[in-house]
Amino acid sequence: MADSTKANIGVIGMAVMGSNLARNLASREGNTVAIYNRSPEKTRTVVQEFPDAGFIASESIEDFVDSLSKPRTAIIMVKAGKGTDAVIEQLTEHFEPGDIIVDGGNALFTDTIRREKAVRETGINFVGAGISGGEEGALKGPSIMPGGSAEAWETLGPILKSIAAVAEGEPCVTHVGTDGAGHFVKMIHNGIEYADMQLIAEAYDLIRRGTGKTPAEIADIFAEWNTGELESYLIEITAEVLRQVDAKTGKPLVDVILDQAGAKGTGAWTVQTALDLGIPVSGIAEAVFARSLSSKPKQREAASDLPGPTGTWSVDDADAFVEDVRQALYASKIIAYSQGFDEIVAGAEEYGWDIKKGEIAKIWRGGCIIRAQFLNRITEAYEQDPGLVALVTAPYFTDAVSHAQDSWRRVVVAAAQAGIPAPAFSSSLSYYDGLRADRLPAALVQGQRDFFGAHTYKRTDTDGTFHTLWSGDRTEVEATDTH
Amino acid sequence: MADSTKANIGVIGMAVMGSNLARNLASREGNTVAIYNRSPEKTRTVVQEFPDAGFIASESIEDFVDSLSKPRTAIIMVKAGKGTDAVIEQLTEHFEPGDIIVDGGNALFTDTIRREKAVRETGINFVGAGISGGEEGALKGPSIMPGGSAEAWETLGPILKSIAAVAEGEPCVTHVGTDGAGHFVKMIHNGIEYADMQLIAEAYDLIRRGTGKTPAEIADIFAEWNTGELESYLIEITAEVLRQVDAKTGKPLVDVILDQAGAKGTGAWTVQTALDLGIPVSGIAEAVFARSLSSKPKQREAASDLPGPTGTWSVDDADAFVEDVRQALYASKIIAYSQGFDEIVAGAEEYGWDIKKGEIAKIWRGGCIIRAQFLNRITEAYEQDPGLVALVTAPYFTDAVSHAQDSWRRVVVAAAQAGIPAPAFSSSLSYYDGLRADRLPAALVQGQRDFFGAHTYKRTDTDGTFHTLWSGDRTEVEATDTH
Repeated sequence: MADSTKANIGVIGMAVMGSNLARNLASREGNTVAIYNRSPEKTRTVVQEFPDAGFIASESIEDFVDSLSKPRTAIIMVKAGKGTDAVIEQLTEHFEPGDIIVDGGNALFTDTIRREKAVRETGINFVGAGISGGEEGALKGPSIMPGGSAEAWETLGPILKSIAAVAEGEPCVTHVGTDGAGHFVKMIHNGIEYADMQLIAEAYDLIRRGTGKTPAEIADIFAEWNTGELESYLIEITAEVLRQVDAKTGKPLVDVILDQAGAKGTGAWTVQTALDLGIPVSGIAEAVFARSLSSKPKQREAASDLPGPTGTWSVDDADAFVEDVRQALYASKIIAYSQGFDEIVAGAEEYGWDIKKGEIAKIWRGGCIIRAQFLNRITEAYEQDPGLVALVTAPYFTDAVSHAQDSWRRVVVAAAQAGIPAPAFSSSLSYYDGLRADRLPAALVQGQRDFFGAHTYKRTDTDGTFHTLWSGDRTEVEATDTH
Repeated sequence: MADSTKANIGVIGMAVMGSNLARNLASREGNTVAIYNRSPEKTRTVVQEFPDAGFIASESIEDFVDSLSKPRTAIIMVKAGKGTDAVIEQLTEHFEPGDIIVDGGNALFTDTIRREKAVRETGINFVGAGISGGEEGALKGPSIMPGGSAEAWETLGPILKSIAAVAEGEPCVTHVGTDGAGHFVKMIHNGIEYADMQLIAEAYDLIRRGTGKTPAEIADIFAEWNTGELESYLIEITAEVLRQVDAKTGKPLVDVILDQAGAKGTGAWTVQTALDLGIPVSGIAEAVFARSLSSKPKQREAASDLPGPTGTWSVDDADAFVEDVRQALYASKIIAYSQGFDEIVAGAEEYGWDIKKGEIAKIWRGGCIIRAQFLNRITEAYEQDPGLVALVTAPYFTDAVSHAQDSWRRVVVAAAQAGIPAPAFSSSLSYYDGLRADRLPAALVQGQRDFFGAHTYKRTDTDGTFHTLWSGDRTEVEATDTH
């Protein structure tokens, strides 16, 4: 940088994510990193712990701003919410037009749209950037999903490229789109992550209860799966978790962990946004609901005596069943991603973002929680057909699902017969069968709606909107728009 | 009323719902009804069409207010949204403390909370009242779910009781709770309605595709079901819709109606609110998603060649299958209601409403779309155990589900094998099996979350919160709250 006593990038918020990102930035050639935290003790600790990082530490926001070369660029890494607004307000007071404020927290994209609009009026650039990969990703290379203006991307792009994860030689960062696009895509990433995790959990549960294999044996199965088309970070760490033995009891750790799953809200946001956009994301919804169901100990206690199927269940051929489950997992995963990308398409249309779907799949190949080889297939699908209306209809995925579907059906059947909950497997299959159905009973639903609410219906054989006089002589009339 | 030249109740908004409600009010002993509409033509038409109603019609809001005896009571029946706010503003300008403004539209309950708070400051009462039953219900007797203050209920209660539907001698109206409670409960009613309709649609589809029966034959089945434990308005009208023959083509109407289901948003609201409250309402969500999936013609067209199971499917014993489907429908319906009442309980807790669950079931027995005998069982369940943690754990429902479950499982299995989408049937069964499971694979999800995000976990054998040092030596440490 021109002035070596100044920093070319600053980070605000020295909790683990923020300090790790600052250390990542400092480790890259050419970066000098300014840091600031509301309580100065934390800043001092970080400086002491990492003397080699060459941080320029400030204890006031004014000093922090002064320590930045122009255009000033600061990444906010504080807990999403009102704290974010407070920091943005401080920065806009001291920054100048052309400077760049980056929110690297997990903000709701509509908040980012609101903030970007407000900051833009001052001439300062505001970039909402989704950052995935957890603490380790922040330190070693996350997947970064920045929104904001093209102008901001010009300055910010090279810096973010320097710290992002690298997948097959390419940095896992791209300019997603204007204003809230980055946080929107990060939200979808997390929604898909929920579905992926739930599907893996169902696969594990079915194998364990169906074959009697131990967690350690199932760890081997996941490790084996990780060498094939399911290769992914989540499959990899599932093997690690299942292999872990609790030191205190000698039992598998997974049997000692309380079976009540927590959630931080981004999965729910994904579903709530999908409902606003009219996009069926049933796999993600079932995953979110499975977590909330698990966290109802009183209900589960009261329901523990509810009867299941009579008799015990075990599979005849364990190897064949494991392979069925693997296929079911792969097919269901394709559906979950297909639904997630549908939501990206609908969001882009609703909010006017020019999102390159193939690029999104690319930057998810490294650094983030759902990173997987599989994402190359998604990139290819959108390269071959940029107007693809549903991921599952791309030839590669159609072949995959076609190949998997007998197994998939057998697994859903086994779960229903055995009384093992498999909401995400079942839901994905129902979605698949719904999508490909020639006729859906939605026609009956339209008939019911017309009967009780005069909501009208359309016909298959002609244009227009119609209503049957159900309380009258039951003739059909053409309905006016105003009804 | 004291002054016979004045009206004891007024209605604003003379679209079909408003004019029907005004006519209903006018038909009851002791009521004189004032009416007003923004465009006076509509008011004049209503006066001309129904001269016997004795309406006091006004063409300005001032005249309308003057035509009401005190405490003035006006029901707003306009399309929910900004129009509602505009009318409320006009009325608060002219009303006096103690007067009552009722919003009878389909407002989102959080809007009602906001409006009630604002209006209350003027000393005027604001009542958000859910009104169900469509146009016919408004005219002949709807189910009414009013929120608001006890003071307002004192004046309003007798009027609403006079026009509500009557079920087993009791009017279908009760004071639900303060501020947004009425519209909240109406929202849940609609969410349950979505689930109910989707379950019926799946039942019809499975019977038709499994047995080859015609819509008219299936109409007979639904008519028969309507004499048993499934007796309900929706089952009744399903028979009517299925029996209807299209005059133009001679085909069953259900085969002529375009199979793309519309939605007005209250189903989506129910799911979005449930996600905020952490309540799994998977049956309602699947129903909402099934409608949005049906309304994606481009995706469905692109997916129409996706392969299904090989071979054709038909059931061996049609009567036995129909009975299985009936049982599956009943069991799934119990789950949908159980989830809906969970959301009522959670909403009441979150917003401080004292909602009597048994009373809600009672006022849904008549007038509204989900009216059914079955609701008496829900009232009884809450009478026997007001603290019931889940409806499905009440003895009556446990017995019912227990009796139905073999059939239920067979139907879900048949759908998966045959390639017929049954998202609501499958999802309800998965929920049931999840609720009663001794252990859920949520423990694995917690392990994954701790691995990649240091989200920590609890243990089954001791209090506290723990983290395994996954990137370190993999020992377990007690986690601090701040992590």
